[in-house]
Amino acid sequence: MAKLVLIRHGQSEWNLSNQFTGWVDVNLSDEGVKQAQNAGKLIKEAGIEFDYAFTSVLTRAIKTLHYALEYSDQLWIPETKTWRLNERHYGALQGQNKAEAAEKFGEDQVHIWRRSYDVLPPLLSADDEGSAVNDRRYANLDPNIVPGGENLKVTLERVMPFWEDEIAPKLLDGKNVIIAAHGNSLRALSKYIEGISDEDIINLEMKTGQPVVYDFNEKLEVQSKTKLGE
Amino acid sequence: MAKLVLIRHGQSEWNLSNQFTGWVDVNLSDEGVKQAQNAGKLIKEAGIEFDYAFTSVLTRAIKTLHYALEYSDQLWIPETKTWRLNERHYGALQGQNKAEAAEKFGEDQVHIWRRSYDVLPPLLSADDEGSAVNDRRYANLDPNIVPGGENLKVTLERVMPFWEDEIAPKLLDGKNVIIAAHGNSLRALSKYIEGISDEDIINLEMKTGQPVVYDFNEKLEVQSKTKLGE
Repeated sequence: MAKLVLIRHGQSEWNLSNQFTGWVDVNLSDEGVKQAQNAGKLIKEAGIEFDYAFTSVLTRAIKTLHYALEYSDQLWIPETKTWRLNERHYGALQGQNKAEAAEKFGEDQVHIWRRSYDVLPPLLSADDEGSAVNDRRYANLDPNIVPGGENLKVTLERVMPFWEDEIAPKLLDGKNVIIAAHGNSLRALSKYIEGISDEDIINLEMKTGQPVVYDFNEKLEVQSKTKLGE
Repeated sequence: MAKLVLIRHGQSEWNLSNQFTGWVDVNLSDEGVKQAQNAGKLIKEAGIEFDYAFTSVLTRAIKTLHYALEYSDQLWIPETKTWRLNERHYGALQGQNKAEAAEKFGEDQVHIWRRSYDVLPPLLSADDEGSAVNDRRYANLDPNIVPGGENLKVTLERVMPFWEDEIAPKLLDGKNVIIAAHGNSLRALSKYIEGISDEDIINLEMKTGQPVVYDFNEKLEVQSKTKLGE
């Protein structure tokens, strides 16, 4: 039996100011730091010991991982950061206030961008100064695959190779794994792990900073799902 | 030209209480946290951008690395933790107060244990509850090589394979590297890098939390050494 713990990063400064974030590298709020530290305490209370840790290349997820590991006395666990666990790229909506976007584009349109499985947001071009093409952390990525905007379907498609190559083999080997990432990259993973339909995934919400624990058998079938602290 | 930055971890709680630390996993003091954050600011001011980060499996060095990277806006850099960068193992002296040890064993003897290049401290046996053999983080290490006490010579010998296999190839490839580690693992590395003799290495002191920058040419010869913040 292997355990997989998913943690959505603690509250960020833009969760607080109600802005679309995506790949913008926003920090945790003070409340987000507390949530991440509390996640570590919950993991320690549950007695979960990890073998490997994974996170995105965005500060809010990395810091959440670090606090969760530090507060469960296992900061020394090997850690891998990958763009494949990044938040869904929100395209040209990144940085916009969600209420203002609803006024500008209409509430129905913004609801579709936020909640539909396969509708893309307005895209950011590679010429835009906010484009990930200009960010040193993506310098080793084929520029042709750096996204200008993603829906949940595309997010799932770029998360899966990392699951297949890096995470699933470790779980199959009986190792315990923690992933600290983002609302949508983790919803995408959960969709795959739990076999949730394109329609029903809309209703899956993950609380910031709450560890979700999956137990797998040796065939990588889910045996149980537990939300710590509930 | 590649840059290598060495940082000795910020002040720890046992630096403060004057205890032999070695492989005991002591946390940073509040002052140590400030030193590590300041190291990050100095690196940012110096405009140094890293490609790879290395640290030990001890919390005080890992946290120092994380603060240094966060405060220089590059927490997303790939990071590898290894026991080979751990502090010198201080054997049965670990946990003892340095002044009390001087009373018990004599000042001269303690000075020899602290400063000689090749005299071993009293060893910790594998049966001792403080032995690293009982620590989960060393579970993948051949139990026959888990040390019960090290001098600087032995420390250098176990640091070198990691330098040769992981660090030197990256510097030769023109990549910038940061290593956050410990007084003695970094003195050992500096001894090799600068070609310091067994006698003279005794006089090399590294300040806690101060980034030391080496510039290398393509033959891995040191071109300059700079201590940031001086």
